[in-house]
Amino acid sequence: MAGSDKKRIETGAAPAIVLVEPQLGENIGTAARAMANFALSDLRIVNPRDGWPSERARAAASGADFVIDAVRVFDTVAEAVADLNHVYATTARARDVTKPVSIPASAAPDMVARIGAGQQVGVLFGRERWGLNNEEVSLSDQLLTFPANPGFASFNLAQAVLLIGYEWFQAAGRGDVEAADYRRVQTPAKRSDLFALFEHLEGALDEAGHLYPPEKRPAMVRNLRAMLQRAELSEQEVRSLRGVIHALVTPRERGLGRKRRGAGAQAGEPGRERG
Amino acid sequence: MAGSDKKRIETGAAPAIVLVEPQLGENIGTAARAMANFALSDLRIVNPRDGWPSERARAAASGADFVIDAVRVFDTVAEAVADLNHVYATTARARDVTKPVSIPASAAPDMVARIGAGQQVGVLFGRERWGLNNEEVSLSDQLLTFPANPGFASFNLAQAVLLIGYEWFQAAGRGDVEAADYRRVQTPAKRSDLFALFEHLEGALDEAGHLYPPEKRPAMVRNLRAMLQRAELSEQEVRSLRGVIHALVTPRERGLGRKRRGAGAQAGEPGRERG
Repeated sequence: MAGSDKKRIETGAAPAIVLVEPQLGENIGTAARAMANFALSDLRIVNPRDGWPSERARAAASGADFVIDAVRVFDTVAEAVADLNHVYATTARARDVTKPVSIPASAAPDMVARIGAGQQVGVLFGRERWGLNNEEVSLSDQLLTFPANPGFASFNLAQAVLLIGYEWFQAAGRGDVEAADYRRVQTPAKRSDLFALFEHLEGALDEAGHLYPPEKRPAMVRNLRAMLQRAELSEQEVRSLRGVIHALVTPRERGLGRKRRGAGAQAGEPGRERG
Repeated sequence: MAGSDKKRIETGAAPAIVLVEPQLGENIGTAARAMANFALSDLRIVNPRDGWPSERARAAASGADFVIDAVRVFDTVAEAVADLNHVYATTARARDVTKPVSIPASAAPDMVARIGAGQQVGVLFGRERWGLNNEEVSLSDQLLTFPANPGFASFNLAQAVLLIGYEWFQAAGRGDVEAADYRRVQTPAKRSDLFALFEHLEGALDEAGHLYPPEKRPAMVRNLRAMLQRAELSEQEVRSLRGVIHALVTPRERGLGRKRRGAGAQAGEPGRERG
Protein backbone atom coordinates (compact mmCIF):
# COMPACT_ATOMS: atom_id res chain seq x y z
CA MET A 1 0.00 0.00 0.00
CA ALA A 2 2.65 2.44 1.09
CA GLY A 3 4.74 1.40 -1.86
CA SER A 4 2.33 2.86 -4.38
CA ASP A 5 1.59 5.97 -2.36
CA LYS A 6 3.06 9.04 -4.01
CA LYS A 7 3.54 10.68 -0.64
CA ARG A 8 5.85 7.94 0.51
CA ILE A 9 9.32 9.19 1.27
CA GLU A 10 12.30 6.95 0.66
CA THR A 11 13.58 6.30 4.13
CA GLY A 12 17.10 5.84 2.80
CA ALA A 13 17.39 9.49 1.85
CA ALA A 14 16.66 11.12 5.19
CA PRO A 15 18.63 12.53 8.12
CA ALA A 16 20.25 10.16 10.62
CA ILE A 17 19.17 10.61 14.24
CA VAL A 18 22.01 10.30 16.76
CA LEU A 19 21.09 9.86 20.44
CA VAL A 20 24.03 10.57 22.71
CA GLU A 21 24.09 8.49 25.92
CA PRO A 22 20.33 8.18 26.32
CA GLN A 23 19.46 6.93 29.77
CA LEU A 24 16.12 5.22 29.36
CA GLY A 25 15.18 2.51 26.90
CA GLU A 26 11.65 3.99 26.84
CA ASN A 27 13.00 7.21 25.45
CA ILE A 28 14.89 5.40 22.72
CA GLY A 29 11.67 3.59 21.85
CA THR A 30 9.46 6.67 21.76
CA ALA A 31 12.11 8.45 19.69
CA ALA A 32 12.05 5.52 17.25
CA ARG A 33 8.27 5.79 17.03
CA ALA A 34 8.53 9.52 16.31
CA MET A 35 11.06 8.74 13.57
CA ALA A 36 8.73 6.18 12.03
CA ASN A 37 5.92 8.77 12.01
CA PHE A 38 8.00 10.82 9.64
CA ALA A 39 9.69 8.09 7.63
CA LEU A 40 13.10 8.35 9.29
CA SER A 41 14.90 5.05 9.81
CA ASP A 42 18.59 5.65 10.51
CA LEU A 43 18.88 5.62 14.32
CA ARG A 44 22.34 5.67 15.88
CA ILE A 45 22.97 5.46 19.61
CA VAL A 46 26.15 6.48 21.40
CA ASN A 47 26.73 4.56 24.64
CA PRO A 48 23.17 3.81 25.77
CA ARG A 49 23.29 3.70 29.58
CA ASP A 50 21.28 0.51 29.88
CA GLY A 51 22.85 -1.29 26.94
CA TRP A 52 21.50 -2.56 23.67
CA PRO A 53 19.31 -4.29 22.57
CA SER A 54 16.59 -3.07 24.89
CA GLU A 55 13.21 -4.71 25.28
CA ARG A 56 11.86 -1.55 26.87
CA ALA A 57 12.88 0.39 23.80
CA ARG A 58 11.17 -2.09 21.51
CA ALA A 59 7.96 -2.00 23.55
CA ALA A 60 7.90 1.80 23.65
CA ALA A 61 8.44 1.97 19.89
CA SER A 62 4.85 0.71 19.45
CA GLY A 63 5.55 -1.20 16.29
CA ALA A 64 8.33 0.89 14.78
CA ASP A 65 10.38 -2.28 14.48
CA PHE A 66 12.02 -1.27 11.23
CA VAL A 67 13.72 1.53 13.15
CA ILE A 68 14.65 -0.55 16.21
CA ASP A 69 16.01 -3.42 14.10
CA ALA A 70 18.33 -1.12 12.19
CA VAL A 71 19.83 0.67 15.22
CA ARG A 72 23.60 0.99 15.26
CA VAL A 73 25.49 1.52 18.51
CA PHE A 74 28.74 3.52 18.74
CA ASP A 75 31.24 4.26 21.50
CA THR A 76 31.77 7.90 20.64
CA VAL A 77 29.97 10.73 18.87
CA ALA A 78 32.91 11.07 16.48
CA GLU A 79 32.44 7.49 15.31
CA ALA A 80 28.67 7.88 15.08
CA VAL A 81 28.93 10.82 12.69
CA ALA A 82 32.01 9.65 10.81
CA ASP A 83 30.24 8.97 7.50
CA LEU A 84 28.06 12.08 7.55
CA ASN A 85 28.64 15.21 5.48
CA HIS A 86 26.81 17.68 7.69
CA VAL A 87 25.86 17.45 11.36
CA TYR A 88 23.32 19.49 13.34
CA ALA A 89 23.44 19.58 17.14
CA THR A 90 20.22 20.25 19.05
CA THR A 91 20.51 22.49 22.05
CA ALA A 92 18.09 24.15 24.43
CA ARG A 93 20.31 27.10 25.29
CA ALA A 94 22.19 29.54 23.15
CA ARG A 95 25.87 28.65 23.43
CA ASP A 96 28.98 30.69 23.08
CA VAL A 97 30.21 28.43 20.35
CA THR A 98 30.52 30.34 17.09
CA LYS A 99 28.31 28.21 14.93
CA PRO A 100 25.22 29.12 12.97
CA VAL A 101 21.99 28.60 14.95
CA SER A 102 18.76 27.61 13.21
CA ILE A 103 15.26 26.61 14.19
CA PRO A 104 13.88 23.37 12.74
CA ALA A 105 11.58 25.16 10.30
CA SER A 106 14.48 26.88 8.61
CA ALA A 107 16.95 24.00 8.92
CA ALA A 108 14.62 21.46 7.30
CA PRO A 109 14.72 22.89 3.76
CA ASP A 110 18.50 23.02 4.13
CA MET A 111 18.51 19.30 5.04
CA VAL A 112 16.33 18.52 2.04
CA ALA A 113 18.63 20.45 -0.27
CA ARG A 114 21.73 18.76 1.09
CA ILE A 115 20.24 15.29 0.86
CA GLY A 116 18.99 16.08 -2.61
CA ALA A 117 22.56 16.88 -3.53
CA GLY A 118 23.71 13.49 -2.27
CA GLN A 119 25.00 14.54 1.15
CA GLN A 120 24.44 12.48 4.28
CA VAL A 121 23.22 14.56 7.20
CA GLY A 122 22.54 13.79 10.84
CA VAL A 123 21.13 15.41 13.96
CA LEU A 124 22.63 14.99 17.45
CA PHE A 125 20.40 14.81 20.54
CA GLY A 126 21.93 15.01 24.00
CA ARG A 127 21.24 13.22 27.27
CA GLU A 128 17.81 13.60 28.88
CA ARG A 129 19.23 15.56 31.81
CA TRP A 130 21.81 17.89 30.43
CA GLY A 131 22.12 17.57 26.70
CA LEU A 132 25.41 17.60 24.84
CA ASN A 133 28.72 18.71 26.25
CA ASN A 134 30.87 21.31 24.50
CA GLU A 135 33.15 18.66 23.08
CA GLU A 136 30.24 16.94 21.39
CA VAL A 137 28.74 20.18 20.16
CA SER A 138 32.08 21.06 18.61
CA LEU A 139 31.77 17.99 16.38
CA SER A 140 28.71 19.51 14.72
CA ASP A 141 28.52 22.05 11.92
CA GLN A 142 25.42 23.87 12.97
CA LEU A 143 23.18 24.29 16.03
CA LEU A 144 19.47 23.66 16.13
CA THR A 145 17.33 25.22 18.82
CA PHE A 146 13.59 24.89 19.40
CA PRO A 147 11.20 27.79 19.73
CA ALA A 148 9.60 27.30 23.17
CA ASN A 149 8.06 28.96 26.18
CA PRO A 150 11.09 30.60 27.84
CA GLY A 151 9.70 29.58 31.22
CA PHE A 152 9.44 25.89 30.28
CA ALA A 153 11.84 25.10 27.47
CA SER A 154 12.98 21.58 28.31
CA PHE A 155 11.80 18.92 25.85
CA ASN A 156 11.46 15.24 26.31
CA LEU A 157 13.93 13.43 24.03
CA ALA A 158 11.27 11.91 21.79
CA GLN A 159 9.49 15.26 21.50
CA ALA A 160 12.66 16.89 20.21
CA VAL A 161 13.15 14.08 17.69
CA LEU A 162 9.51 14.43 16.68
CA LEU A 163 9.83 18.11 15.89
CA ILE A 164 12.87 17.53 13.68
CA GLY A 165 11.12 14.67 11.88
CA TYR A 166 7.97 16.75 11.46
CA GLU A 167 9.79 19.64 9.83
CA TRP A 168 11.93 17.35 7.72
CA PHE A 169 8.90 15.46 6.46
CA GLN A 170 7.03 18.58 5.52
CA ALA A 171 10.02 20.17 3.86
CA ALA A 172 10.74 16.99 1.91
CA GLY A 173 7.19 16.45 0.74
CA ARG A 174 5.62 19.81 1.30
CA GLY A 175 4.00 20.31 -2.07
CA ASP A 176 2.15 17.02 -2.07
CA VAL A 177 1.04 17.08 1.52
CA GLU A 178 -0.32 20.56 1.51
CA ALA A 179 -2.10 20.28 -1.81
CA ALA A 180 -3.66 16.97 -0.94
CA ASP A 181 -4.65 17.54 2.65
CA TYR A 182 -5.46 21.16 2.98
CA ARG A 183 -9.10 21.93 3.04
CA ARG A 184 -10.89 19.41 1.02
CA VAL A 185 -13.87 21.36 -0.23
CA GLN A 186 -16.71 19.73 -2.02
CA THR A 187 -18.09 21.25 -5.20
CA PRO A 188 -20.67 23.87 -4.28
CA ALA A 189 -24.10 23.52 -5.89
CA LYS A 190 -24.94 25.45 -9.03
CA ARG A 191 -26.16 28.90 -8.07
CA SER A 192 -29.53 28.22 -9.68
CA ASP A 193 -30.07 25.30 -7.26
CA LEU A 194 -29.03 27.49 -4.37
CA PHE A 195 -31.39 30.29 -5.41
CA ALA A 196 -34.22 27.79 -5.69
CA LEU A 197 -33.50 26.79 -2.09
CA PHE A 198 -33.59 30.44 -1.03
CA GLU A 199 -36.95 30.91 -2.70
CA HIS A 200 -38.32 27.74 -1.20
CA LEU A 201 -37.34 28.88 2.30
CA GLU A 202 -38.51 32.45 1.84
CA GLY A 203 -41.81 31.28 0.39
CA ALA A 204 -42.38 29.09 3.43
CA LEU A 205 -41.49 31.94 5.76
CA ASP A 206 -43.81 34.33 3.92
CA GLU A 207 -46.54 31.75 4.35
CA ALA A 208 -45.78 31.66 8.06
CA GLY A 209 -45.77 35.46 8.27
CA HIS A 210 -42.21 35.42 9.53
CA LEU A 211 -40.64 37.93 7.11
CA TYR A 212 -42.51 40.85 8.56
CA PRO A 213 -42.87 43.86 8.58
CA PRO A 214 -42.41 44.39 4.80
CA GLU A 215 -39.77 47.12 5.15
CA LYS A 216 -37.55 44.72 7.08
CA ARG A 217 -38.05 41.82 4.70
CA PRO A 218 -35.13 42.61 2.34
CA ALA A 219 -32.59 42.74 5.17
CA MET A 220 -33.96 39.57 6.77
CA VAL A 221 -33.74 37.76 3.45
CA ARG A 222 -30.22 39.01 2.86
CA ASN A 223 -29.07 37.76 6.24
CA LEU A 224 -30.62 34.34 5.77
CA ARG A 225 -29.07 34.01 2.33
CA ALA A 226 -25.67 35.06 3.62
CA MET A 227 -25.69 32.31 6.24
CA LEU A 228 -26.60 29.65 3.73
CA GLN A 229 -24.07 30.92 1.24
CA ARG A 230 -21.29 30.79 3.75
CA ALA A 231 -21.88 27.07 4.21
CA GLU A 232 -20.86 26.41 0.57
CA LEU A 233 -23.57 23.79 0.22
CA SER A 234 -23.19 20.97 -2.26
CA GLU A 235 -25.97 19.96 -4.60
CA GLN A 236 -26.82 17.05 -2.31
CA GLU A 237 -26.94 19.35 0.71
CA VAL A 238 -29.23 21.78 -1.07
CA ARG A 239 -31.57 18.86 -1.70
CA SER A 240 -31.34 17.82 1.97
CA LEU A 241 -32.23 21.29 3.17
CA ARG A 242 -35.17 21.46 0.81
CA GLY A 243 -36.31 18.17 2.31
CA VAL A 244 -35.99 19.71 5.76
CA ILE A 245 -38.10 22.72 4.87
CA HIS A 246 -40.64 20.47 3.22
CA ALA A 247 -40.79 18.26 6.31
CA LEU A 248 -41.25 21.17 8.70
CA VAL A 249 -43.98 22.75 6.60
CA THR A 250 -45.82 19.77 5.20
CA PRO A 251 -48.12 18.86 8.09
CA ARG A 252 -49.36 22.42 8.07
CA GLU A 253 -49.84 22.35 4.31
CA ARG A 254 -51.72 19.11 4.50
CA GLY A 255 -53.95 20.05 7.34
CA LEU A 256 -54.06 23.47 8.84
CA GLY A 257 -52.63 25.10 5.70
CA ARG A 258 -55.43 23.84 3.53
CA LYS A 259 -57.94 24.85 6.15
CA ARG A 260 -56.40 28.31 6.42
CA ARG A 261 -56.34 28.84 2.70
CA GLY A 262 -59.90 27.67 2.47
CA ALA A 263 -60.88 30.15 5.17
CA GLY A 264 -58.98 32.99 3.51
CA ALA A 265 -56.71 33.26 6.55
CA GLN A 266 -53.82 34.45 4.38
CA ALA A 267 -54.51 38.12 5.02
CA GLY A 268 -54.49 37.71 8.75
CA GLU A 269 -51.13 35.94 8.76
CA PRO A 270 -48.59 38.77 8.74
CA GLY A 271 -49.96 40.15 11.98
CA ARG A 272 -49.11 37.14 14.05
CA GLU A 273 -46.55 37.45 16.73
CA ARG A 274 -43.05 36.36 15.70
CA GLY A 275 -40.50 34.40 17.73
CA MET B 1 13.27 37.29 32.58
CA ALA B 2 10.37 35.86 30.67
CA GLY B 3 8.37 39.00 31.34
CA SER B 4 10.62 41.14 29.22
CA ASP B 5 10.79 38.64 26.38
CA LYS B 6 8.99 40.01 23.36
CA LYS B 7 8.09 36.55 22.20
CA ARG B 8 6.43 35.68 25.47
CA ILE B 9 2.86 34.62 24.95
CA GLU B 10 0.13 35.35 27.46
CA THR B 11 -1.11 31.89 28.34
CA GLY B 12 -4.61 33.23 28.79
CA ALA B 13 -4.99 33.88 25.08
CA ALA B 14 -4.23 30.48 23.64
CA PRO B 15 -6.16 27.45 22.39
CA ALA B 16 -7.76 25.10 24.90
CA ILE B 17 -6.64 21.48 24.66
CA VAL B 18 -9.47 18.96 25.14
CA LEU B 19 -8.50 15.33 25.77
CA VAL B 20 -11.43 12.99 25.21
CA GLU B 21 -11.46 9.92 27.47
CA PRO B 22 -7.70 9.58 27.79
CA GLN B 23 -6.80 6.20 29.24
CA LEU B 24 -3.45 6.75 30.91
CA GLY B 25 -2.53 9.38 33.47
CA GLU B 26 0.98 9.36 32.01
CA ASN B 27 -0.37 10.53 28.69
CA ILE B 28 -2.27 13.36 30.31
CA GLY B 29 0.93 14.38 32.08
CA THR B 30 3.13 14.29 29.00
CA ALA B 31 0.47 16.22 27.10
CA ALA B 32 0.50 18.84 29.88
CA ARG B 33 4.27 19.07 29.60
CA ALA B 34 4.02 19.57 25.83
CA MET B 35 1.48 22.32 26.47
CA ALA B 36 3.81 24.04 28.91
CA ASN B 37 6.60 23.93 26.33
CA PHE B 38 4.48 26.14 24.14
CA ALA B 39 2.77 28.31 26.75
CA LEU B 40 -0.62 26.60 26.59
CA SER B 41 -2.42 26.27 29.91
CA ASP B 42 -6.11 25.49 29.38
CA LEU B 43 -6.36 21.70 29.64
CA ARG B 44 -9.81 20.10 29.68
CA ILE B 45 -10.41 16.40 30.10
CA VAL B 46 -13.57 14.53 29.21
CA ASN B 47 -14.09 11.39 31.32
CA PRO B 48 -10.52 10.35 32.09
CA ARG B 49 -10.63 6.56 32.40
CA ASP B 50 -8.62 6.44 35.61
CA GLY B 51 -10.22 9.45 37.27
CA TRP B 52 -8.89 12.82 38.32
CA PRO B 53 -6.72 14.07 39.99
CA SER B 54 -3.99 11.69 38.91
CA GLU B 55 -0.61 11.40 40.57
CA ARG B 56 0.76 9.63 37.50
CA ALA B 57 -0.28 12.60 35.39
CA ARG B 58 1.44 15.03 37.72
CA ALA B 59 4.64 13.02 37.76
CA ALA B 60 4.70 12.69 33.97
CA ALA B 61 4.14 16.45 33.58
CA SER B 62 7.74 16.97 34.78
CA GLY B 63 7.00 20.24 36.53
CA ALA B 64 4.21 21.61 34.35
CA ASP B 65 2.17 22.07 37.51
CA PHE B 66 0.46 25.22 36.32
CA VAL B 67 -1.21 23.14 33.63
CA ILE B 68 -2.10 20.20 35.87
CA ASP B 69 -3.46 22.46 38.63
CA ALA B 70 -5.81 24.22 36.23
CA VAL B 71 -7.27 21.07 34.61
CA ARG B 72 -11.04 20.98 34.31
CA VAL B 73 -12.92 17.70 33.96
CA PHE B 74 -16.18 17.31 32.03
CA ASP B 75 -18.68 14.52 31.45
CA THR B 76 -19.21 15.17 27.76
CA VAL B 77 -17.43 16.78 24.84
CA ALA B 78 -20.39 19.11 24.38
CA GLU B 79 -19.91 20.48 27.88
CA ALA B 80 -16.16 20.75 27.46
CA VAL B 81 -16.47 22.95 24.38
CA ALA B 82 -19.62 24.86 25.40
CA ASP B 83 -17.91 28.23 25.88
CA LEU B 84 -15.71 27.99 22.78
CA ASN B 85 -16.32 29.81 19.51
CA HIS B 86 -14.41 27.51 17.19
CA VAL B 87 -13.42 23.90 17.66
CA TYR B 88 -10.85 21.82 15.76
CA ALA B 89 -10.91 18.02 15.90
CA THR B 90 -7.68 16.11 15.33
CA THR B 91 -8.01 12.97 13.26
CA ALA B 92 -5.60 10.49 11.74
CA ARG B 93 -7.83 9.43 8.90
CA ALA B 94 -9.68 11.35 6.26
CA ARG B 95 -13.35 11.17 7.17
CA ASP B 96 -16.44 11.39 5.08
CA VAL B 97 -17.75 14.26 7.16
CA THR B 98 -17.89 17.36 5.02
CA LYS B 99 -15.80 19.69 7.11
CA PRO B 100 -12.74 21.61 6.07
CA VAL B 101 -9.50 19.71 6.72
CA SER B 102 -6.29 21.52 7.60
CA ILE B 103 -2.78 20.63 8.61
CA PRO B 104 -1.40 22.27 11.78
CA ALA B 105 0.90 24.62 9.86
CA SER B 106 -2.04 26.17 8.04
CA ALA B 107 -4.50 26.03 10.95
CA ALA B 108 -2.18 27.80 13.39
CA PRO B 109 -2.33 31.26 11.76
CA ASP B 110 -6.11 30.86 11.70
CA MET B 111 -6.09 30.14 15.45
CA VAL B 112 -3.93 33.18 16.05
CA ALA B 113 -6.25 35.41 14.03
CA ARG B 114 -9.35 34.10 15.78
CA ILE B 115 -7.84 34.51 19.24
CA GLY B 116 -6.60 37.95 18.30
CA ALA B 117 -10.19 38.82 17.43
CA GLY B 118 -11.35 37.72 20.89
CA GLN B 119 -12.61 34.26 20.01
CA GLN B 120 -12.06 31.24 22.21
CA VAL B 121 -10.79 28.22 20.31
CA GLY B 122 -10.07 24.65 21.30
CA VAL B 123 -8.62 21.45 19.86
CA LEU B 124 -10.08 17.98 20.48
CA PHE B 125 -7.83 14.94 20.85
CA GLY B 126 -9.34 11.45 20.87
CA ARG B 127 -8.59 8.33 22.86
CA GLU B 128 -5.16 6.72 22.57
CA ARG B 129 -6.53 3.67 20.80
CA TRP B 130 -9.16 4.87 18.42
CA GLY B 131 -9.46 8.62 18.50
CA LEU B 132 -12.76 10.44 18.36
CA ASN B 133 -16.05 8.90 17.33
CA ASN B 134 -18.21 10.45 14.63
CA GLU B 135 -20.51 12.00 17.18
CA GLU B 136 -17.62 13.83 18.79
CA VAL B 137 -16.13 14.89 15.48
CA SER B 138 -19.50 16.33 14.54
CA LEU B 139 -19.21 18.77 17.44
CA SER B 140 -16.21 20.39 15.81
CA ASP B 141 -16.05 23.00 13.11
CA GLN B 142 -12.91 21.91 11.35
CA LEU B 143 -10.66 18.87 11.13
CA LEU B 144 -6.94 18.82 11.74
CA THR B 145 -4.81 16.06 10.33
CA PHE B 146 -1.07 15.54 10.70
CA PRO B 147 1.26 15.07 7.78
CA ALA B 148 2.88 11.69 8.46
CA ASN B 149 4.41 8.59 6.99
CA PRO B 150 1.37 6.82 5.47
CA GLY B 151 2.76 3.52 6.67
CA PHE B 152 3.07 4.66 10.30
CA ALA B 153 0.69 7.52 10.95
CA SER B 154 -0.39 6.89 14.53
CA PHE B 155 0.79 9.48 17.01
CA ASN B 156 1.19 9.22 20.73
CA LEU B 157 -1.29 11.59 22.40
CA ALA B 158 1.35 13.95 23.78
CA GLN B 159 3.11 14.05 20.41
CA ALA B 160 -0.07 15.22 18.72
CA VAL B 161 -0.58 17.89 21.38
CA LEU B 162 3.05 18.91 20.97
CA LEU B 163 2.72 19.48 17.23
CA ILE B 164 -0.32 21.69 17.70
CA GLY B 165 1.40 23.67 20.43
CA TYR B 166 4.54 23.99 18.34
CA GLU B 167 2.70 25.42 15.34
CA TRP B 168 0.54 27.65 17.52
CA PHE B 169 3.56 29.05 19.32
CA GLN B 170 5.41 29.82 16.14
CA ALA B 171 2.40 31.35 14.45
CA ALA B 172 1.62 33.45 17.52
CA GLY B 173 5.12 34.86 17.68
CA ARG B 174 5.55 35.23 13.97
CA GLY B 175 4.26 38.75 13.71
CA ASP B 176 1.20 40.66 14.75
CA VAL B 177 0.82 41.95 11.22
CA GLU B 178 -0.18 38.61 9.86
CA ALA B 179 -2.78 38.07 12.54
CA ALA B 180 -4.30 41.48 11.98
CA ASP B 181 -4.55 41.15 8.22
CA TYR B 182 -5.85 37.67 8.20
CA ARG B 183 -9.50 37.13 7.47
CA ARG B 184 -11.67 39.11 9.74
CA VAL B 185 -14.39 36.71 10.74
CA GLN B 186 -17.36 37.53 12.89
CA THR B 187 -17.34 35.84 16.27
CA PRO B 188 -19.03 32.46 15.96
CA ALA B 189 -21.66 31.69 18.58
CA LYS B 190 -20.63 29.77 21.66
CA ARG B 191 -20.84 26.07 20.89
CA SER B 192 -23.52 25.59 23.54
CA ASP B 193 -25.80 28.01 21.66
CA LEU B 194 -25.06 26.22 18.42
CA PHE B 195 -25.80 22.82 19.95
CA ALA B 196 -29.12 24.17 21.26
CA LEU B 197 -29.97 25.18 17.68
CA PHE B 198 -29.13 21.68 16.47
CA GLU B 199 -31.41 20.17 19.07
CA HIS B 200 -34.20 22.56 18.25
CA LEU B 201 -34.01 21.65 14.56
CA GLU B 202 -33.64 17.93 15.15
CA GLY B 203 -36.53 17.96 17.61
CA ALA B 204 -38.72 19.63 15.02
CA LEU B 205 -37.66 17.14 12.37
CA ASP B 206 -38.28 14.21 14.69
CA GLU B 207 -41.77 15.59 15.28
CA ALA B 208 -42.24 15.74 11.54
CA GLY B 209 -40.99 12.19 11.11
CA HIS B 210 -38.22 13.39 8.82
CA LEU B 211 -35.22 11.75 10.49
CA TYR B 212 -36.28 8.30 9.51
CA PRO B 213 -35.53 5.37 9.47
CA PRO B 214 -33.79 5.28 12.86
CA GLU B 215 -30.62 3.62 11.55
CA LYS B 216 -30.09 6.52 9.17
CA ARG B 217 -30.81 9.19 11.75
CA PRO B 218 -27.23 9.62 13.04
CA ALA B 219 -25.81 10.21 9.55
CA MET B 220 -28.64 12.58 8.63
CA VAL B 221 -28.09 14.55 11.81
CA ARG B 222 -24.34 14.67 11.24
CA ASN B 223 -24.79 16.01 7.73
CA LEU B 224 -27.23 18.68 8.83
CA ARG B 225 -24.93 19.75 11.63
CA ALA B 226 -21.94 19.86 9.32
CA MET B 227 -23.75 22.26 6.99
CA LEU B 228 -24.72 24.58 9.80
CA GLN B 229 -21.28 24.43 11.34
CA ARG B 230 -19.62 25.38 8.12
CA ALA B 231 -21.59 28.61 8.10
CA GLU B 232 -19.82 29.75 11.30
CA LEU B 233 -23.03 31.29 12.59
CA SER B 234 -22.86 34.22 14.97
CA GLU B 235 -24.95 34.35 18.12
CA GLN B 236 -27.44 36.64 16.34
CA GLU B 237 -27.66 34.27 13.40
CA VAL B 238 -28.29 31.31 15.66
CA ARG B 239 -31.20 33.26 17.13
CA SER B 240 -32.48 34.10 13.65
CA LEU B 241 -32.43 30.48 12.59
CA ARG B 242 -34.24 29.41 15.72
CA GLY B 243 -36.85 32.00 14.82
CA VAL B 244 -37.09 30.47 11.37
CA ILE B 245 -37.62 26.96 12.71
CA HIS B 246 -40.15 28.27 15.17
CA ALA B 247 -42.00 30.09 12.42
CA LEU B 248 -42.12 27.09 10.13
CA VAL B 249 -43.32 24.76 12.83
CA THR B 250 -45.63 26.95 14.87
CA PRO B 251 -48.81 26.83 12.78
CA ARG B 252 -48.68 23.08 12.93
CA GLU B 253 -48.16 23.17 16.67
CA ARG B 254 -51.06 25.47 17.11
CA GLY B 255 -53.50 23.66 14.92
CA LEU B 256 -52.79 20.38 13.29
CA GLY B 257 -50.12 19.47 15.83
CA ARG B 258 -52.56 19.59 18.68
CA LYS B 259 -55.05 17.68 16.62
CA ARG B 260 -52.51 15.05 15.72
CA ARG B 261 -51.36 14.63 19.24
CA GLY B 262 -54.94 14.41 20.37
CA ALA B 263 -55.63 11.72 17.81
CA GLY B 264 -52.49 9.80 18.75
CA ALA B 265 -51.19 10.19 15.22
CA GLN B 266 -47.62 10.37 16.49
CA ALA B 267 -46.95 6.70 15.98
CA GLY B 268 -47.94 6.82 12.34
CA GLU B 269 -45.59 9.68 11.59
CA PRO B 270 -42.31 7.94 10.87
CA GLY B 271 -43.82 6.06 7.95
CA ARG B 272 -44.55 9.08 5.85
CA GLU B 273 -42.72 9.57 2.63
CA ARG B 274 -39.74 11.87 2.80
CA GLY B 275 -38.56 14.50 0.31
